[in-house]
Parts: sequence; C-alpha cells; structure tokens
Amino acid sequence: MSSAIRNPYLMFLGDAADQLAAKTAAGVAHWRPDWCLGQLRLPGCQADLGLPDMTLEAGREAGCKTLIVGVANRGGRFSTAWTNTFHSALELGYDIASGLHNRLTSIPGLAEKAEQEGRRLIDVRHPTQEFVVGNGVKRSGKRLLPVGTDCSVGKMYTALALEQEMRSRGMNVSFRATGQTGIFIAGDGVSVDAVVADFISGAVEWLTPSNDPDHWDLVEGQGSLFHASFAGVTTGLIHGAQPDALVLCHEPTRRHMRGLPNFPLPDLALCMERNLQTAQLTNPDCRFIGLSINTQALESSAARKLLNDLERQFKLPAVDPVRQGVGALVDALG
Amino acid sequence: MSSAIRNPYLMFLGDAADQLAAKTAAGVAHWRPDWCLGQLRLPGCQADLGLPDMTLEAGREAGCKTLIVGVANRGGRFSTAWTNTFHSALELGYDIASGLHNRLTSIPGLAEKAEQEGRRLIDVRHPTQEFVVGNGVKRSGKRLLPVGTDCSVGKMYTALALEQEMRSRGMNVSFRATGQTGIFIAGDGVSVDAVVADFISGAVEWLTPSNDPDHWDLVEGQGSLFHASFAGVTTGLIHGAQPDALVLCHEPTRRHMRGLPNFPLPDLALCMERNLQTAQLTNPDCRFIGLSINTQALESSAARKLLNDLERQFKLPAVDPVRQGVGALVDALG
Repeated sequence: MSSAIRNPYLMFLGDAADQLAAKTAAGVAHWRPDWCLGQLRLPGCQADLGLPDMTLEAGREAGCKTLIVGVANRGGRFSTAWTNTFHSALELGYDIASGLHNRLTSIPGLAEKAEQEGRRLIDVRHPTQEFVVGNGVKRSGKRLLPVGTDCSVGKMYTALALEQEMRSRGMNVSFRATGQTGIFIAGDGVSVDAVVADFISGAVEWLTPSNDPDHWDLVEGQGSLFHASFAGVTTGLIHGAQPDALVLCHEPTRRHMRGLPNFPLPDLALCMERNLQTAQLTNPDCRFIGLSINTQALESSAARKLLNDLERQFKLPAVDPVRQGVGALVDALG
Repeated sequence: MSSAIRNPYLMFLGDAADQLAAKTAAGVAHWRPDWCLGQLRLPGCQADLGLPDMTLEAGREAGCKTLIVGVANRGGRFSTAWTNTFHSALELGYDIASGLHNRLTSIPGLAEKAEQEGRRLIDVRHPTQEFVVGNGVKRSGKRLLPVGTDCSVGKMYTALALEQEMRSRGMNVSFRATGQTGIFIAGDGVSVDAVVADFISGAVEWLTPSNDPDHWDLVEGQGSLFHASFAGVTTGLIHGAQPDALVLCHEPTRRHMRGLPNFPLPDLALCMERNLQTAQLTNPDCRFIGLSINTQALESSAARKLLNDLERQFKLPAVDPVRQGVGALVDALG
C-alpha cells in the first residue's frame, strides 16, 4: 500500500454470524479506540464491538472517512445487502478498506463508482505495490520482531502492547503491520503472505526502512519457522526485518500446530535457537529479549508458575502481555 | 500450469545481444535435444544454439508445435519484430511459451489472436494455477532435492544429470521443474518464486504428489537458505518437497552470495546442517546423499583434490556432474 487508510473509521460488521466472524474489526476497535467511532450492522448481525451503532449517514456526520470491512462474509460471497451498502458509502464520501480475500474491486460497478466519486477501494490482503528483491543491507534504526512457536499465539498483540508501553515511556516507535488486522490498526502496511514469493524479504525491507538511531520498528510477526505451511513467509520476514530484538510468543495449551494435526509444537529452546540462527543471517547482533506467553487458558497460579519457570530456564523476562503488561520486555531492551 | 507444453519446440532467439541472453534456450537445447528441432533468429541475433536455422514455416513442416521464447529481450520490452513473429506463429498453428517477466498476454491483440486460432500462450514465470496452503502430510514415493550454498551453483543441472543417470539405469523418475528453464525442459512445472508467498509449500506439494513407492521425484532447487533475498522461497520449497535425499551444490570459487556483495558464502558443514534441520520438519528421515560441485573454474588436479577432501570431510560422495557424472550419487541412494 502506498498511502495510508484515512481515519476515523466506521466499522462494517455486515451480517456477521458470530463474534468470531468480526475478529479483525474487534482487534482494530481494541487497539485504535480513538479511530473507531461507530459500527454498522445489517439485519441478522450477531457481532457487537460495543461501539455506537451508526448508519452510513450518521458515521459521516461523526467524521468517519473510511468504512472498514473487518468481518468474514458468509459463504465467502458478497451479498446484495453488502454491495448496496458499499455503493451508498462511496456516494456519501467514504473510502472503503477490506480485509477479505474477495476483492472490493471485483464487485461489479464498484471500482467505477469509486473513481467517479473520487474515493479509494483498498483491498489490504492484495498488495498493489511493486517490490524489489531484498538486498540484506544493514539499515539504521532498530527493529523488534515477535516470533512464534505457532501461528496465532499473540505476535501481533505483543507488538501492539510494546508500541503502547514504549510510547507511554516517550520512546520513538512505529508499529509495522504485515497482516490485514495490523494494517487497519497501523493505517498502512503490507500483507506479506500475499506478496509474490521472490519479494518477501524485499517487501519487509521496504516496510521497515532506515530510521533514526533511537527509533524502534515493532514489526508484526507472521507464521512460525516450525509451521509446514507458512515457514517460507516467516523466513523471508525475519531476513527482511533484520531484527535487533526477538520476543518468543507461545500458547502453552496448544495441542498441535494450527491446522496441522500431525505436527506437535516445537520445544521452546529449539524454537528460539532456530529463529536466532535465521535472524543472524541479516543481523549478527540479534538477540532474544524475552518471552510473551498467552496464558489465557491457565489459572493465574499455574500461569505465574509457568512464567517463573521460563524466566529461570531462559534467564529472560517472561510475561503474559494481558496479565502483566510488557514493561519487563521494554526494560530488557536496555 | 495445468497442462504440458507441447513438443517438439522451435527455439526463438530473437535479436539476442549475446550467447548469455539465450541461456534459457541453451539449457533446453542441451537437456532436450530430441525436442528442439531448430532455432529462429532475427537480424542482429548474436546467439547460436547450434541447431538448424528455421523459419516459422520450416519449423511447422519439421513438426514443431510450440515456439519457445527462452531469451532475454533487449531493454525488457517486446519489439515490433518480436510481436510480428508471435502473431505469425499463432497463425501458423504454434503455441507460444515464454520465460520472460513481461507477459505474452500483455502484448496488444495477442491473446485475442491466440483464442481465435485455438492456440495457447504460456507465461511460465506467471503461474495461473490456484494453489492451496501446504499441509505437510507425508506422501508416498521418494523425493530428492538439490540445495545450494548460493543461487546458480548447479542445482538444476544436478537434478537433470540425476534424471538422465537414473533413467539409464531403468529407475522410475520424474524431473519436477520449479523455474522457467526447468519448465521448458520438463514440459510443465511451477515457477515457485512467482507463487504468492502463502502457497510456496502448497505449490510444491502439488508439484510432487503421491507416487509409486519406488518412484523418485527429482525436484529442481531454488535459491539458498543463506541467501538474504530468496531464503523464504527455499524454505517453502524444502518443506513442500519433503525430500528423502538432499544433495549439496556448491561453486568453490564464488566470492560472495550472488547479487549480495556483503554476504560471504556459508561454510559447507553449516549449510548442510541447516538444510537438514529445515527438511526434517516435514521428513524426519531426510539425509544428505552427496555433494555436487561445479569445478569448472578449477584445474582438473585442483578439482580432484577438492572433491577428495570433501569426500573425506563429509564421508559422502562428492562429484562434479560434468567431469565425473553423477553415478556415485545414484549409488548412494541405496
């Protein structure tokens, strides 16, 4: 994406079948409460972000500039109710940004309408940017990358919690989004898993350019080196980010790699060793600064014990970013 | 690609500036002499495959079914002389297959002409196939993958030399192409570096499906785990191929990683260790069966000494496939 998604946002929830279908929208509302002024729900919608319900017109009056489609569409198709809403939104002066696989630009007449109204359609899963291959040249500024034992273990949450904590300490930071939810939260970014394979590391180099010596890019992680479906994306992301600091993210009750019932989760020490080896190709000074553990499924005493054990084992801070915050990780940046 | 490129081929060399510009065509002519009946050269062409020069008409009379564009175009643009040739080829009944970044389908009127003539335009660098994400499930049959210390160190050559040697021994083998030259040689395949990043391993799983227990897929390697631009592609390729056997390919006089002047080549033992670790995620029984060294730049005595030293160090056969052939590697398959 070459220019930022304009905020504030009106969050489109459509006819979401349940709260999970609006997971992306919920993430945006959680991390960017100031940008999310309202929600637009169609008849039958079973999701609720706890935001004021607004019509398109009310949203415009409140100042909303972009309609965010952060919801799964039933059956993977755009219904007439959805496409009518999108046409009306353009007429009222909204840009529309979608995180769906289906492209807004594939809806008959919508691209023409957008052009006619001078508005933008932004399909955040489908990068339109032309990238070049990565060159591995060391860039100024610092970068932190959360890596995971698996997909969906809290890598984005950790990066965003770090952004909040570091900002509150007056540090010079940017959250760099690599997936759809993150892009809505950052206002821009690159869906790295949708980039042509040759350009994974190049796209991430573009996303995290040279910066002030004291500036930290907090790069959203993707996948896992131990995930047989997505490790290529993870590898290119690590090489392109050339991180100075890694944080290991983990969910201790996960039974197997997400979507791969025959693959157990890796041992944490092994996972850290492999991530560090990979990162050191483009940044020999890279190190782990801590662990971020999603202990939601554990009682608080069991969670506390696990974190203590991990701290002893790895001689690094181990936190649940929800329960303890990430202050200890920021302290460890030194 | 969903269906094979029809052979025999007429090799289009255009107005190639030098022999190197026709590198792809030369590779195809070397490995598939029976398919390459002639070459078509335009005025100013400085390349020569040593094939009979043929007009489009003569090529058709000789039986050619596809015009292969295995040559770099000057300035990255299609000249009028080229596009006129392509239009004439379609009219005469040729399919056209190109390995260029520019798409045949982007030449004004060419796609319409192809449809009208009932012919195919095949841009082998641009997969049109829809892939699914890899699942890492073990498939029957066996797979061999050459991996490299760097790009362009002989991975494709090694796979093709193995195909020839194994076929001559009556073994049940298929060469599986993952790049443009390989695709012309195999007649089909997938340009894995052009696949959307999420689908690298899935595309390779599709390319190397379940097979007879005694069947060997010889998978064309790509990039290197130590190449900061392309290691993501290599990682996904290794996971998708789930190789039983690896061969390390290396060019001993290379000064730095190709295109990356600040990156030295990896130590061979380290390179083998990392490739084996990566491969064992989807095939714990994977092992190295030997080394394939491009010693072209060495005197024969220096080459012999290097290969002997490597054999002693790694207790595996080490060959230059051009000088010694790959018989020792096939013996090592056991």
